[in-house]
Amino acid sequence: MPTVQPEPARVRSDESGVHAGDKGYQQPEVDVAALRTLLDGRYAEVRDLVRANLAEHAQVLVDEEEMSTADFRERVKDVVVMMAGTGQTGMGFPEEYGGGGDIGASIAAFETLAMGDLSVLVKVGVQFGLFGGAILQLGTKTHHDAHLADLVSGRTMGCFAMTESGHGSNVQALGTVATYDTATEEFVITTPDDASRKDYIGNAAAHAELAAVFAQLEVDGERHGVHAFVVPIRSGGQVVDGVRIEDCGPKMGLNGVDNGRIWFDGVRVPRTALLNQFAEVTPEGRYLSPIENPNKRFFTMLGTLVQGRVCVGGAGINAAKVALTIATRYAVRRRQFEATSPDEEQVLLDYGMHQRRLLPLVARTYALHFAQEVVAGQLHDVFSGPGPNEEGDDEHARRMLESRAAATKALGTWHATHAIQECREACGGAGYISENRFTALKADTDVFTTFEGDNHVLLQLVAKGLLTDYAGEFEDMDQLGMARFVAGLAVETVVERTSVHKLVQSVRDLLPGGDRWDQEAGLLDPNYQLAMLRFREEHMIGGVARRLKRGIDQGSNPGAVFSRVQDHVIAAARAHAERLVLEAFVAKAAELPDGDLKVAVNLLCDLHALSTIEADRAWFMEHGRLSSARSKAISREVGSLCRKIRPLAVDLVDAFGVPEEVLRSPELLTWTDTGPA
Amino acid sequence: MPTVQPEPARVRSDESGVHAGDKGYQQPEVDVAALRTLLDGRYAEVRDLVRANLAEHAQVLVDEEEMSTADFRERVKDVVVMMAGTGQTGMGFPEEYGGGGDIGASIAAFETLAMGDLSVLVKVGVQFGLFGGAILQLGTKTHHDAHLADLVSGRTMGCFAMTESGHGSNVQALGTVATYDTATEEFVITTPDDASRKDYIGNAAAHAELAAVFAQLEVDGERHGVHAFVVPIRSGGQVVDGVRIEDCGPKMGLNGVDNGRIWFDGVRVPRTALLNQFAEVTPEGRYLSPIENPNKRFFTMLGTLVQGRVCVGGAGINAAKVALTIATRYAVRRRQFEATSPDEEQVLLDYGMHQRRLLPLVARTYALHFAQEVVAGQLHDVFSGPGPNEEGDDEHARRMLESRAAATKALGTWHATHAIQECREACGGAGYISENRFTALKADTDVFTTFEGDNHVLLQLVAKGLLTDYAGEFEDMDQLGMARFVAGLAVETVVERTSVHKLVQSVRDLLPGGDRWDQEAGLLDPNYQLAMLRFREEHMIGGVARRLKRGIDQGSNPGAVFSRVQDHVIAAARAHAERLVLEAFVAKAAELPDGDLKVAVNLLCDLHALSTIEADRAWFMEHGRLSSARSKAISREVGSLCRKIRPLAVDLVDAFGVPEEVLRSPELLTWTDTGPA
Repeated sequence: MPTVQPEPARVRSDESGVHAGDKGYQQPEVDVAALRTLLDGRYAEVRDLVRANLAEHAQVLVDEEEMSTADFRERVKDVVVMMAGTGQTGMGFPEEYGGGGDIGASIAAFETLAMGDLSVLVKVGVQFGLFGGAILQLGTKTHHDAHLADLVSGRTMGCFAMTESGHGSNVQALGTVATYDTATEEFVITTPDDASRKDYIGNAAAHAELAAVFAQLEVDGERHGVHAFVVPIRSGGQVVDGVRIEDCGPKMGLNGVDNGRIWFDGVRVPRTALLNQFAEVTPEGRYLSPIENPNKRFFTMLGTLVQGRVCVGGAGINAAKVALTIATRYAVRRRQFEATSPDEEQVLLDYGMHQRRLLPLVARTYALHFAQEVVAGQLHDVFSGPGPNEEGDDEHARRMLESRAAATKALGTWHATHAIQECREACGGAGYISENRFTALKADTDVFTTFEGDNHVLLQLVAKGLLTDYAGEFEDMDQLGMARFVAGLAVETVVERTSVHKLVQSVRDLLPGGDRWDQEAGLLDPNYQLAMLRFREEHMIGGVARRLKRGIDQGSNPGAVFSRVQDHVIAAARAHAERLVLEAFVAKAAELPDGDLKVAVNLLCDLHALSTIEADRAWFMEHGRLSSARSKAISREVGSLCRKIRPLAVDLVDAFGVPEEVLRSPELLTWTDTGPA
Repeated sequence: MPTVQPEPARVRSDESGVHAGDKGYQQPEVDVAALRTLLDGRYAEVRDLVRANLAEHAQVLVDEEEMSTADFRERVKDVVVMMAGTGQTGMGFPEEYGGGGDIGASIAAFETLAMGDLSVLVKVGVQFGLFGGAILQLGTKTHHDAHLADLVSGRTMGCFAMTESGHGSNVQALGTVATYDTATEEFVITTPDDASRKDYIGNAAAHAELAAVFAQLEVDGERHGVHAFVVPIRSGGQVVDGVRIEDCGPKMGLNGVDNGRIWFDGVRVPRTALLNQFAEVTPEGRYLSPIENPNKRFFTMLGTLVQGRVCVGGAGINAAKVALTIATRYAVRRRQFEATSPDEEQVLLDYGMHQRRLLPLVARTYALHFAQEVVAGQLHDVFSGPGPNEEGDDEHARRMLESRAAATKALGTWHATHAIQECREACGGAGYISENRFTALKADTDVFTTFEGDNHVLLQLVAKGLLTDYAGEFEDMDQLGMARFVAGLAVETVVERTSVHKLVQSVRDLLPGGDRWDQEAGLLDPNYQLAMLRFREEHMIGGVARRLKRGIDQGSNPGAVFSRVQDHVIAAARAHAERLVLEAFVAKAAELPDGDLKVAVNLLCDLHALSTIEADRAWFMEHGRLSSARSKAISREVGSLCRKIRPLAVDLVDAFGVPEEVLRSPELLTWTDTGPA
């Protein structure tokens, strides 16, 4: 029950002397290199390799504007293959197939790649993450030997044919069928209707030779649920018989990726085409799986693909860094209106509103960066351990990882959409000129919120885990099942543990003020900030459980009850995600030795924590955890923190380490009083 | 003092029997045609003409994806000229020059045009609104005779060269100089540095023969501020000597508009090139103007261009209608996950979260539509009356109009950005495919928030008017001036009128409950809803005035005081804008005769009002106007209203009357359970 106990966080309670808001406060000086080292963490070398590759291929950002779609797709493919040659894209694969054998490194590389052209990023994700990941995680040695070396090098391109037009997020309901033919020992793959065509499949329209195809497995008239198969779709560049591929056509962004639709008309593949890590069909047509429960089998298979979500969340956070670097540097150069002096226009970032628009986003980017570091580390640990087929302790760890990955992905990608938009507006008309980067950043990242799991669907998944304490058998339920389940026993424990009395009790020993902790503690005490987010999370989860139970007890249709509570469900999951993010940031800040760097990071952590509370202060007031006076004090403190961070702003974004070559934006970054330098 | 008196609104207090939430509530049936007639208002015929033109030229939406930029620019120009031939684009010009002589009609036409390709819209805006508007409003008969007939027909293309790279929103500070040469009776126009080059000028890169150039007028060594001149920049398609034009290059959107940068190197134009409605230079070099105060002269000139802001706000609202039409129709066809039944997936719009995402945006679109109708009507009245050079009663009306136009533009364009984004996400991956419209909608409308006045700058303008009661001489102040001024007398009246006591007093006669009106009135009573928004507005304005005064009284730099209060200033202006919007919606609903249409419109009005209050419920709680119980009740009521509106949703968006031809989105709109029809 990970959300129950507000464990004593390792916090900076002993260093109140260096804290913002204190009288002894002294403006810190930021050592940009040291801060960047902190951000880069354990994979600094990997990140620098990617930065070098990005700088070398920065021209691709210009090509995106100037080339035809067909040419740009080839260009992106070439860049991907060149990058593969440096080892950058294969870090997560076993060394015997040319990989780097380090999953954490592969996440770090992918995240950093998001500072450059995002078609390159997504093409890498499709080839090495999705297609390669399916072969690696769902396949066995036969498949590894047959495909891994070629796909790691980029010699063979593949695609990941899961999504169907009619069943976007509901993968379990997809319609493509793979029927086993005992006579020939083959699977016959068929698309029964247009709702079941594979859709938006990256690499499908032009480059993929192979596809990892997800289909309903049918053996001897019996369905066994969704399984994956390796299916050749092109040979020598020509689409093979029985396969039909259509180009998805122009997209909002990512036009360097060749997305397509695929139909299968009785395509035959050998029995060994089944990626058989979790299930097998014998030559004579017997279905075998070490996981008996079909639901559990499905979610175990899907769970191996969690890396994609971790990657996309990290990519969103890093794309936001690019936007914030440009907008912040512009804001200290660009002058607009005479404000403090009749003789000179004022620099944008000296306006309070401009600080309010940009600086909390910078702070949140730091927070999300450190939260991403935690989830990437957990992914590394779980996937470097024994596999999920060996029953053991790691099942709970995997559930937790999936939940955390879903939560971080949702927050990271929404943050990207929001931050990039705000930065574009903060650069005015210049932000609208493509050379100045926001065009591609906006268009390319937009789909992040809905691919690799729609954010709302992901947050529901998170909420299910919270409501069921990650009990495996229940977590696999659909909405209908969950609503029914909640009417049962488990909700009692949720309700009990989230009673206000319990919640207050669990924090009062940590904070001054006892039962009045929420009024007595200092706003800049991280224990207070964490307690607020923990209280909100637990209270919301309890509320959802009570509302579901009440509805079902009254005899309503469980689905209708769920629908009515759905915004509450999603809010609870968000609250959980926000708590994880703040915990990660607070823990990171607490680790730092005393000094200016710690002071600066604490300023950011406070700004992030308080602007997060401020954003939902209505809820805290509604639930008796914030007086109106204290709520106003939080808003004032946010303003004060912005003013303290203002002089550090450029250093803080420079520490992100976005290569100068990919920033472009000559007019925004070299502006002087007489025009662009 | 327009914001002071909460006048008794004409509200529907006598029809509580048909109100949502009442026991006697019966689901209304929406007569789509009647609702559309209500929306189209007085200019239904004009709107239908535009709809017909949009349908005829709908192919331009496809061309945008398929043509090169150069070809698409020509295509857009051709469409604009063809539309001009139908009379659609010239409705605001005098009949003797081929126009329609009806300013209101020209606004209605422009707004409706925003349902189609937005490069066409913006090209129309540049040619007829900005360039044509400058000739019409700033020029005199000589200029009208010389240019109007040709520009109204589209035979002569022109551009509006105001914005400079270094002086985006601060037009008064621009750097281009026009020096009068008495010897030759010419003006010499010069760009002194790169910060003063004209930038982002639509029609400049390819098509404009003429430019309305804004420059600092200098006569005999004396500067007289910014004035406008008609300057030929091309002749027979070739750029003339002394003018240099550079293409702005690829943009995020609107690539059918040829934006360019212009430098002038001693370009000579005759004395008559000065658009001399408000100022004149005699042959011998005497400067004459009926408006002595240079500040006032500048703002009077600029004020004549208010039509552009009204148009852009309306365009944003209508672009949002397109997105909402697509997303709503998709949401009643697309199924996802088994929720209420194990046999069938549930339609998206039956999910509570999906209702919450889309339906308040539909309601807000209605609200903004009716608010836009008010400001367009006021524009029509003011500009159909005597001109601003004749001193009279209309000066105050013009100030009010400018403020309302700025407020509506900011809300309307932010709404577009927000609604289009939400609709894209609500359509999942399909929303990312260009054919499905969101690509162009997002990219093209993005700049609306920062062009024709950056929204934040516009809201500051609104706030100035509120703080100074639209006193002409003070409204022209810059930030520095305003902060100083507020330290003076006027703030006392603001502070006095906004005392909580006064505010409460002014509503208590209207509402049951007396001093406890905010706790006793029904949530669905429009008098309550309006009182809440009025209270917030007045309270915020008073707060800003007090904070400014206190800062200056303490001897701080006025600019620094302003910077610190700036987010409060902008929040006050937003609150004002929201109040205007709700008033317009309530008044419109009150006009309707009893019946189903009225019931439906009242549902929308309630949903808009309560979701607006809900969005800022933290403020209301902080300021003692909302108990936590009542705040939660408002959220519940929003959910309940969404459920009531759910069955009407498609009718409500169909009433927007977006032509089917411009919706495109075949996959989203014709979806069936077995795939796209």
